[in-house]
Amino acid sequence: MDLTQLLISLILIIVGAKALGELANRIGQPTVLGELAAGVILGVGCLKLVDPEANVLLLLADIGVIILLFETGLATDLRELLAVGWRSLGVAAVGVILPFVGGYFFAVAFGYANLVAIFLGANLPDTSVGITARVLSDLGKLNTTEARIILGAAVADDIIGLIILAVVRDLGLTGEVHPLKIVQITALAVAFFIGAIVVGNLFAPRLVKVIEKARTSGTLIVGSIAFAFLWSLGAELVGSAAIVGAFAAGLALGRTHKFDVIAGELKPIAYILTPVFFVKIGAAVDLRYFNPFDQANHAILVVGGFLFVIAILGKALAGFTVFDKRINSTAIGVGMAPRGEVGLIFAEVGRRAGVVTADLFAAVVVVMALTTFLAPPLLKLTLARRPRGMSLVAWFFEPARKRVSSMIWGR
Amino acid sequence: MDLTQLLISLILIIVGAKALGELANRIGQPTVLGELAAGVILGVGCLKLVDPEANVLLLLADIGVIILLFETGLATDLRELLAVGWRSLGVAAVGVILPFVGGYFFAVAFGYANLVAIFLGANLPDTSVGITARVLSDLGKLNTTEARIILGAAVADDIIGLIILAVVRDLGLTGEVHPLKIVQITALAVAFFIGAIVVGNLFAPRLVKVIEKARTSGTLIVGSIAFAFLWSLGAELVGSAAIVGAFAAGLALGRTHKFDVIAGELKPIAYILTPVFFVKIGAAVDLRYFNPFDQANHAILVVGGFLFVIAILGKALAGFTVFDKRINSTAIGVGMAPRGEVGLIFAEVGRRAGVVTADLFAAVVVVMALTTFLAPPLLKLTLARRPRGMSLVAWFFEPARKRVSSMIWGR
Repeated sequence: MDLTQLLISLILIIVGAKALGELANRIGQPTVLGELAAGVILGVGCLKLVDPEANVLLLLADIGVIILLFETGLATDLRELLAVGWRSLGVAAVGVILPFVGGYFFAVAFGYANLVAIFLGANLPDTSVGITARVLSDLGKLNTTEARIILGAAVADDIIGLIILAVVRDLGLTGEVHPLKIVQITALAVAFFIGAIVVGNLFAPRLVKVIEKARTSGTLIVGSIAFAFLWSLGAELVGSAAIVGAFAAGLALGRTHKFDVIAGELKPIAYILTPVFFVKIGAAVDLRYFNPFDQANHAILVVGGFLFVIAILGKALAGFTVFDKRINSTAIGVGMAPRGEVGLIFAEVGRRAGVVTADLFAAVVVVMALTTFLAPPLLKLTLARRPRGMSLVAWFFEPARKRVSSMIWGR
Repeated sequence: MDLTQLLISLILIIVGAKALGELANRIGQPTVLGELAAGVILGVGCLKLVDPEANVLLLLADIGVIILLFETGLATDLRELLAVGWRSLGVAAVGVILPFVGGYFFAVAFGYANLVAIFLGANLPDTSVGITARVLSDLGKLNTTEARIILGAAVADDIIGLIILAVVRDLGLTGEVHPLKIVQITALAVAFFIGAIVVGNLFAPRLVKVIEKARTSGTLIVGSIAFAFLWSLGAELVGSAAIVGAFAAGLALGRTHKFDVIAGELKPIAYILTPVFFVKIGAAVDLRYFNPFDQANHAILVVGGFLFVIAILGKALAGFTVFDKRINSTAIGVGMAPRGEVGLIFAEVGRRAGVVTADLFAAVVVVMALTTFLAPPLLKLTLARRPRGMSLVAWFFEPARKRVSSMIWGR
C-alpha cells in the first residue's frame, strides 16, 4: 500500500464513519452502528473501496481498538471493577460454556462430525468487547455496575477464549489435547492480568511524576500511550489479547491524578483511529450471504440463524446469572452479545485444517454480522430501561434463596 | 509487519524521541534534534531496532509530516504569506539554481561524466521543510516574516524540484528532455497550489459550518483531518508533494473562526505521529560512512564535504537575496538548508539508472545527514540574534540602490 491508497482509504473511512455515525445518532441509534454500516458499504460486500485485509489498515484498526480499551480503562474505577469480580467471572463462565455446548450439540444433532461440532461450538463464545465499550462510552454509561460487570467478564472471556483456542487448535492439528500446555496458557494469562494491574498501579504514579518534570510539551500523552502500548505488547507476548493489556494500563493510569488530562488528550486520537476498527469489522461482512434469493445461501442462513439464536441465548442467560434486583441483567447479556474476530480466527483455523467447510465459515460470518449489528441498538434500548425487578434466573431461584435466608437470619 | 513488531517500533520511536528531545531541550537545543538523534541510534546505522524501510512505519511517517505541515499552515497567515510571495520566489529560485549549478560544476571539475554531474547537481537543491517548520514552531517563531518567507520558498522549492526531477529522470532514462511535459508538470503543480488555496478558502468556512451542525462529538477534528488528507491526496495526484497540499489545507482552515480549536485538538495527534517522521529521517543515516578510520570512507567524506559546502552556501546566498534590514536573512538561508528525501529520491533514480555509484550515493547521504543535523541548532542560534543590519547581497547592492533612490526621490 502506498501513500495515495492510504490517504484514499483513510478519507473514506473517517468521513464515511462520521457521516453514518451522525445519521445513526439522528435516528436515535448509537453512533458506532453507523460506523459499522459505513464499513459494510465501503467493504468487501458492497463498494469494495476499503480492503479489510490490507496490512496497514488492519494494524491501524488494531491500534484503534487498543486506544479504545485504554480509554475505557481510564474511565473505569479499578476498585469497583474488582468489587464485581465474581459476578464478572460468573457471567464469563456461563457465557462461554452455554454457547460452546449449545453450538456443539446443535452440530451433533444436525449430523456433523464430532470435530466439526467442536469447532462450531468454539466459534460462539468470545465477546468482541470493543463495540460494547464504545456504546457504553457514547451513552455515558461506563460508570455503571452493568458496564463494570461486562468489562470484567470480557477480560475473563478473553482468557477462557485462549484456553478454548489452544484446545481446539490441538484437536484440529494433532487430534490430541495437552493438559499441561493448557494449564500453562491459563496460568500465564491470569498472571499477566494480575501482574499488569499490580505493577501498573505501582508504576503509573511514578510515570506521571517523571512526566511532570518534563520541560517539553506533549510528554503526558506520549508517555501514557507508550505505557498503553507496552502493556498491550506484554499481553500479546503472553498470548493474551492486546486490548486486555491496554485496558489494564488504562485502569492503572485512571488512578493517577492526571487521568482526566490524559483522557482529554486521548480523545482526538481516538476520534481518528477507532473508526478504522469499526469500519474494518463492518468491511469484513459480506452482504451476499444475506441474499435469500440465492439458493446457495439457504443452508448458510439456516445454520447461521440457529447458531445466532444459540449465541444470543447463551449470553442472555449468562447475564441473568447476576442475582441482583438493582442490576440490569438483560443489558449485561446484550452487552456480551457482539461476536467478532476471535470467532472468525477459530473458524479460519478450522477451515485451514479442512474441518470447517466454506458454507460453515459463511454461517459464522452471518453470526458475527447479526450479533455485531443488533448489539448496539439493543444495548441502548435495554440500558434505557430501569432494571426489571428480577431476572429470569433470579425469579427461578428467588423463593429458594428467601427460604434459606429466613432460615439463617430468621426473617 | 504484525502488531507485535509495530508496537515495539512505536514504543521505541515515541519514547526514544521524547527522551532525547527532552535532553536536547535541556542542553538548549531544539527538541527535533533529539528526535533525529533517536532515529540515528534506533536506525540502520546503530542499534537496527527501527527499520526505516518498513512499509507501515514509512506510511505513518508520511502521515506525521502531513499533520506537521497542516499544523504549520493553520498557524500561518495566508495574507502575510502572500505579501512575501515574491521574496519567497526569489529565495527558492536562487536556492535551487546555485546548489544545482555548484554541484554540477564541482562534479565536472572532478572529472565526472556530464550525466553524473547533472544527477549530482540535482541532489542538492530540495529543502526538507519539515525540520525547519518544527524548529520554528517549537521556538514560537512561526509568526515571523522569516518563517513566512521560508515556508513560501519551500512550496516554490517543491514545484521547482518537480521540474528538475522530471528533467533528470528523462535524461537518465531516455537521454532526452521533453519540454512540453515539463511545461505540463509545472503548470499542473502551480495550478494545483493556487487552486488548493482558492477552493480551500471557499470550501473551509462551509465545511466548518456543516461541522458545527453535527450532534456527535469529534466532528471538527475528523472533518479537518479529512480535509487535510484530501488536499494532500490532490497534491500527490498532480505529482506535487503531499505536504504542499496539507499546508494549503491548513492555510484555508486557519482563516476560519475555529482555527484555534482545530490546532488544539491536532496537538495530541501530532505529538504521537510527527516523531515517527523525524525518527525515520534519523534512522536512514548510516553512521558508518562517518568513520574516518575506514579507508573506503575517505572519498565519500571528501566528496560529501564539498557537496555539503555547496549545499549550505547555495541556500545561504539564497537567503541573502532578501533586501531588507529588518529581516534576518541569515536565518532564512539556514532555514532552507536541511535536505531530505527528495535529494535521496534523485540519487536513487540515478543509482537505478546506473549513473550514480554507491560511493556517490553515500556522499549524498552524508550531505543529507549534515544539513539535517546542523540546521536545528544553527536556526535557533541565528533566530535568537536580531537582524544584522544588512545582508551580504544588500551590502553589495546598497550603494547602487541608494544612488537610484536619491535620483528618484531626491534624498
